[in-house]
Amino acid sequence: MRTAALIATIALTALSVNAAHAADVEAGREKSASCAGCHGVDGNSQTPMNPNVAGQKEQYLVTTMLDYKNGKRQHTLMQAVLTPLSEADIRDIAAFYASQKCK
Amino acid sequence: MRTAALIATIALTALSVNAAHAADVEAGREKSASCAGCHGVDGNSQTPMNPNVAGQKEQYLVTTMLDYKNGKRQHTLMQAVLTPLSEADIRDIAAFYASQKCK
Repeated sequence: MRTAALIATIALTALSVNAAHAADVEAGREKSASCAGCHGVDGNSQTPMNPNVAGQKEQYLVTTMLDYKNGKRQHTLMQAVLTPLSEADIRDIAAFYASQKCK
Repeated sequence: MRTAALIATIALTALSVNAAHAADVEAGREKSASCAGCHGVDGNSQTPMNPNVAGQKEQYLVTTMLDYKNGKRQHTLMQAVLTPLSEADIRDIAAFYASQKCK
C-alpha cells in the first residue's frame, strides 16, 4: 500500500508540474548560458568533478535545481547562479538538458 | 593563477585517486546490485526522480557516494546502502556506471 501511495503521489506531482508550466526546450537552451561553463554547452561536462546533465531525468533536474536555489542542497556557486532564475526558468533549463544527448 | 592552481589541484587529486586503487569495472558491476533498484541495472533509471548514473563522470560519482556514506550529503536510503561498502567498493561501482552507456 505504501508503494501504491508513493506511486500515486509521484503521478499527481508530475501532473501538477505539467499543469503549472509547459517547459520550453529552446527557451531553456538560451537560459542555460550560465550553466555551460561547468556542465558543458550541451550538458556534457568537460570537468571530472562536474556532473553531466545531458539526458538526465527532467524531474530530477528540476528538483535538484530548486533544492540548490532554496538552500536545501548546499552549493554556493549553484545557489548564486540559480537565485535570479524563476521556477519556470529552471523548468525550461531542465527540459533543455533532459533533451540533450549524453555522450 | 587561481585557475591554474585549481587545475593543478584537480590533476594531482586524480593522480592520487588512481594511485590509491585501480577501479575494477567488472567488480563494480557485481557490487552495484543494491543500486539497480533505483538507478537501473545499467545506470539508466526508470524513475523520474532517480538520476541516471550511466555515463556519469567517474570522479563525480566517487565523491557523491563518499559524501552520502559520510553524511556530508543527506539521504537516508543512500547512506544505508553505502555504509557497508568500502571506498574501494565505491570506486569500482563508480567505474562500472561511468563505463555504461547513457540512453
